[in-house]
Amino acid sequence: MARFSFNQATANNWALAELVDGCAAAGVGSVGLWRAPVLDHGLARAAKRVRDAGLSVSSLCRGGFFTAADWLDDNRRAIDEAATLGAPVLVLVVGGLGGRALDDARAHVATALDTLVPHARAAGVRLAVEPMHPMYCADRGVVSTLAAALDLAARYPSRDVGVVIDTYHVWWDEKVWSLIAEAGAADRIAGYQVADWVTPLPEGVLLGRALPGAGHIEIPRYTQAVTAAGYTGPIEVEVFNADLWTRPGPDILADTIAAYLSHVVPNE
Amino acid sequence: MARFSFNQATANNWALAELVDGCAAAGVGSVGLWRAPVLDHGLARAAKRVRDAGLSVSSLCRGGFFTAADWLDDNRRAIDEAATLGAPVLVLVVGGLGGRALDDARAHVATALDTLVPHARAAGVRLAVEPMHPMYCADRGVVSTLAAALDLAARYPSRDVGVVIDTYHVWWDEKVWSLIAEAGAADRIAGYQVADWVTPLPEGVLLGRALPGAGHIEIPRYTQAVTAAGYTGPIEVEVFNADLWTRPGPDILADTIAAYLSHVVPNE
Repeated sequence: MARFSFNQATANNWALAELVDGCAAAGVGSVGLWRAPVLDHGLARAAKRVRDAGLSVSSLCRGGFFTAADWLDDNRRAIDEAATLGAPVLVLVVGGLGGRALDDARAHVATALDTLVPHARAAGVRLAVEPMHPMYCADRGVVSTLAAALDLAARYPSRDVGVVIDTYHVWWDEKVWSLIAEAGAADRIAGYQVADWVTPLPEGVLLGRALPGAGHIEIPRYTQAVTAAGYTGPIEVEVFNADLWTRPGPDILADTIAAYLSHVVPNE
Repeated sequence: MARFSFNQATANNWALAELVDGCAAAGVGSVGLWRAPVLDHGLARAAKRVRDAGLSVSSLCRGGFFTAADWLDDNRRAIDEAATLGAPVLVLVVGGLGGRALDDARAHVATALDTLVPHARAAGVRLAVEPMHPMYCADRGVVSTLAAALDLAARYPSRDVGVVIDTYHVWWDEKVWSLIAEAGAADRIAGYQVADWVTPLPEGVLLGRALPGAGHIEIPRYTQAVTAAGYTGPIEVEVFNADLWTRPGPDILADTIAAYLSHVVPNE
């Protein structure tokens, strides 16, 4: 369990303080946090609460959404929040079209990264571009493949910009195995998240993910691939699921740990 | 309007006979047909009805679904139906995982094509592999990119196997422009379909497409690209939309023609 990290979004309705206590009680050493609940709790208080519980923060989700009018200030704040939390990585969901043509939206992401990298470097936070499943291209993320994320990252030192590999977003890609190897060889794997794919997709296609092992993705093969690529960092389980969210936080955590033990640990 | 073809699925509840008469009355010269309504009407009767109305059949949708137990017999029948209708192209939606691992499901598609190509060649029907949007990878089509479809097609003479380029399925792909050029240079473009992308996606993600111009896809650029790639064949408008389907067939056809005139014709 040393590499397991519980991403807060998996128990979206579990208050931060209880989540931290619940993870500590369950022997979980690391959490992936989200900005909104952290700010609701109070940034400094959240940082102290996590630290006092002996937890580390594997990543902060999420910066990006470069389509927003205040994207620059907002992302600078996100970087600072990650630094305050001791999160080494800020996950970037880059945003959709935002009224731009697709090529222009993608070019804008590169421009935004150019602007943010110096601030992130100064704060000691690594930016991690997360390729999003192509079904989110219009409204969440125009970086649709691991190849595109690696191309963006390649313009900066690897300590400044990496990629997040989330099984849910990349599993359909026939080039994914060579891309994972390439990402590892270039020291670009800044995070690894696992979630499983089930159908039918719900309206809005956001809240229909499943715990590892419950769907169609070959989770063991992904964990083997990122390990073979040299990644030794935390492994976050991040599952957005409307039904899961209705359950008590401790139950969600227990099922997440069970899924992790069955479908991830044997292949770490 | 010479290249316009009205795909029957755009007016899913319009009976075949009325659709044929409506298209003829509107000056439409070509239709894309679907197997189920054709068989409901009677194959020979449908073929005669279309012919008597002076219409040509641009394609028959769809073969494929190689995950089904009776895929071989079913696809042989689909090929024969296309031949009877005078459709030069049978569109293949290859099917999802069907209980296989993803690589195995993709390998099975290649095996199925090997088996079907001789039958298709003998019938004078070109098989057209349609890459499906990656959100359909699990349950509808494991061929998720134009690159993968072209790789499959490349194993056969171009007159036997081509690809269908549907804007809805490929628009997110950062490599799509070079792939369209490659497809054209290799004489692999067996069909071109237009539909637009709108959000939020509905549950099941099947019936949320839009008429050209109503969404986020740069339809003019796609039409220019397939034209520049040398494609001179029919252009089908194929839109699966639950709201559109509630309207009378002639109204749907009128709106489809209007969208085609505005967003496709200037770039043919």
